[in-house]
Amino acid sequence: MNQTYSQATYRLHDDKADFAKKAQSIAVGLTVGSWTELPEAAKAQMQKHLGQVVSVDVYEPEGLQPGERYADITIAYPDVNFSRDIPAFLVTAFGKLSMDGKIKLIDISPSDDFLSAFPGPKFGIQGVRDLLGVQDRPLVMSIFKSVIGHDLDNLREQFLQQALGGVDLIKDDEILFENPLTPLERRVEACVSAAREAERATGQKLIYFTNLTGSTFELKANAKRAIAAGANGLLFNVLAYGFDALAELAKDPDIHVPIAAHPAMAGALYPSPHYGVAAPVLLGKLMRIAGADLSLFPSPYGSVVMPKAENLAVMEALLAPTLPQKPSFPVPSAGIHPGLSPLIMGDFGPHVVVNAGGGVHGHPGGAAAGGRAFRQAVDAVSKGIALEQYAKDHEELRIAIERWGVRTS
Amino acid sequence: MNQTYSQATYRLHDDKADFAKKAQSIAVGLTVGSWTELPEAAKAQMQKHLGQVVSVDVYEPEGLQPGERYADITIAYPDVNFSRDIPAFLVTAFGKLSMDGKIKLIDISPSDDFLSAFPGPKFGIQGVRDLLGVQDRPLVMSIFKSVIGHDLDNLREQFLQQALGGVDLIKDDEILFENPLTPLERRVEACVSAAREAERATGQKLIYFTNLTGSTFELKANAKRAIAAGANGLLFNVLAYGFDALAELAKDPDIHVPIAAHPAMAGALYPSPHYGVAAPVLLGKLMRIAGADLSLFPSPYGSVVMPKAENLAVMEALLAPTLPQKPSFPVPSAGIHPGLSPLIMGDFGPHVVVNAGGGVHGHPGGAAAGGRAFRQAVDAVSKGIALEQYAKDHEELRIAIERWGVRTS
Repeated sequence: MNQTYSQATYRLHDDKADFAKKAQSIAVGLTVGSWTELPEAAKAQMQKHLGQVVSVDVYEPEGLQPGERYADITIAYPDVNFSRDIPAFLVTAFGKLSMDGKIKLIDISPSDDFLSAFPGPKFGIQGVRDLLGVQDRPLVMSIFKSVIGHDLDNLREQFLQQALGGVDLIKDDEILFENPLTPLERRVEACVSAAREAERATGQKLIYFTNLTGSTFELKANAKRAIAAGANGLLFNVLAYGFDALAELAKDPDIHVPIAAHPAMAGALYPSPHYGVAAPVLLGKLMRIAGADLSLFPSPYGSVVMPKAENLAVMEALLAPTLPQKPSFPVPSAGIHPGLSPLIMGDFGPHVVVNAGGGVHGHPGGAAAGGRAFRQAVDAVSKGIALEQYAKDHEELRIAIERWGVRTS
Repeated sequence: MNQTYSQATYRLHDDKADFAKKAQSIAVGLTVGSWTELPEAAKAQMQKHLGQVVSVDVYEPEGLQPGERYADITIAYPDVNFSRDIPAFLVTAFGKLSMDGKIKLIDISPSDDFLSAFPGPKFGIQGVRDLLGVQDRPLVMSIFKSVIGHDLDNLREQFLQQALGGVDLIKDDEILFENPLTPLERRVEACVSAAREAERATGQKLIYFTNLTGSTFELKANAKRAIAAGANGLLFNVLAYGFDALAELAKDPDIHVPIAAHPAMAGALYPSPHYGVAAPVLLGKLMRIAGADLSLFPSPYGSVVMPKAENLAVMEALLAPTLPQKPSFPVPSAGIHPGLSPLIMGDFGPHVVVNAGGGVHGHPGGAAAGGRAFRQAVDAVSKGIALEQYAKDHEELRIAIERWGVRTS
């Protein structure tokens, strides 16, 4: 077997550290443990297990203030050291090391050999488009206005109203768990029957992402119960269960529906400049490798904000041809209204899901009108027509623009 | 059913926010979604699902610098809103919210009702002591010098040498995964046979914590394979798999061995003052509720450091009688040598595991002597004898002190 390596890149902040030495100590410490004191015979045997320093780029321009000096360090870890699962890779590359000073995992480049163990998204962007029969425009996703404390009739009616506006995707709230009012299978049946009713009215196909919850070891069974009840999509709080749970769900041939990854708890990991895991790794590469067909993340437009450059880096990680896994749909979320469509499509291009809650339900004409306004906005941008122009003969869009305005930059 | 609530406390940094308003928006936004605009009839129905603001403590003394203003906000979430599993609680209390500004989860107080779903550690401190027959002193844990690239004979010999020093616990490295050189069952057999050999020599019982790895959905089967092969303890990278995986392993009656929780990846979550989950929650309360018999965390003494106050807060969370779960052993780790024993036992008291790698293997007399030095140091402190005094007729301790010195403060 050829020797292959998987790489990880870290940003270390330290005012004084000898970063080259630190890089060596990572490469040795997280692999064979010790090196220079080993006898030559042991070195020969251990060489293939030894981590390698790929690069050390120190940032220390003149006039640096305390706290500003850092280095980006890339280490190559021999694949022979860990098994072909994400916990093994992450524990190797950022297990103990995560606790060793101001250090953030800013990139990963798993080897082709490692990546070959991950089928990735079953559907990906093209597969989801094919399911819906929508090839050439951003998809529109809608979420419930509120779910907790509501009964099946209420949820069904909320679902129907959203669906009648012609949205492509509807997802559960991530905080809707198994509960007596809307238990999994009955919820799926109610929402899917609403979807069928709406489809008859609109001619528009629709995927419903049911929130997959419960005990870790029951997740597959719960997914299959949901699918048996008619669910044609799953929402999953990946970070609450670990990337491996997603990877195993995505690998299961009986779970033949798209999976949307919710970023719940991601804010505990990505925003600090000094600690954690950068968003393009956490919500980009890892979600795609593990098999998310859609990955949600905070948009740069709303109240819950991720800076635009970071958003675009997440998108790049989800779409880039450098990974063998199918591309995943980026879903910038929170604070989205129809008037943002030119901006979203300018930033993300056509391969994006426009995801809205308040922007659908807050429409003065109701949720169906809100959905229609989004579809009209997306159509206008796709056709290269200014929203204000298109709104002249598209009533719902006109009202949405009155309510929220238009942003093009 | 009486209405019960589980609480979460956050620290929010913001120079200008109206924290009282923010607290209200959390209490409403993460539960019923909207409140003031609801009709009275709907309010009556939704009241039991509505989050409650418990307290808002704003820190803004005179002369505050930009970035320093914060508030500690406690919200009570109705238990009726989420299922009795840690992912559901965390996604509710810190899912979307984790991405909403500079916010850190600094405490949790799940309700008695929620906690009653968690048996917690099967053994806890007393159970582990009973397994070993050691009631009145800190336990001594040793780790391998290096594991990757070594074969079974080498691992067995390393195990034997450590064990001969009379340590109570030996754990795998957290980065030892399934591999052809030392596959799970053969590794367990080799190490357990070394443990038996050492036990015959020392009269000292020993628990070997085998690293439990692999696919999430194979974890139970892997644990049972290890136990069938003779493993009498498991090491688990909890954060790579999620707290629920630990909780489910700990609940399984067939996994009747203590579980040591490794903190791999914890540094991505706890160190930032602005983001993440505080160490006493992450490595204290949640580990104990989920069922860790031992919880490892970076000691305040070594190179990989957590401040002492935070260490002691983790300890408090592991030991405090306020939780119904059995107390878990605190295991401050990294940089421990025998001369630190007075300090460790001063800080932690007798209910602590003194965990050493380099401090055992780096002993000039070898690992067995290193283990003996630790046992002697712990005995000396337990008897109220100064290490230097005790070292006069305890050779291994004397040499360890020559090598590393003594720290009492």
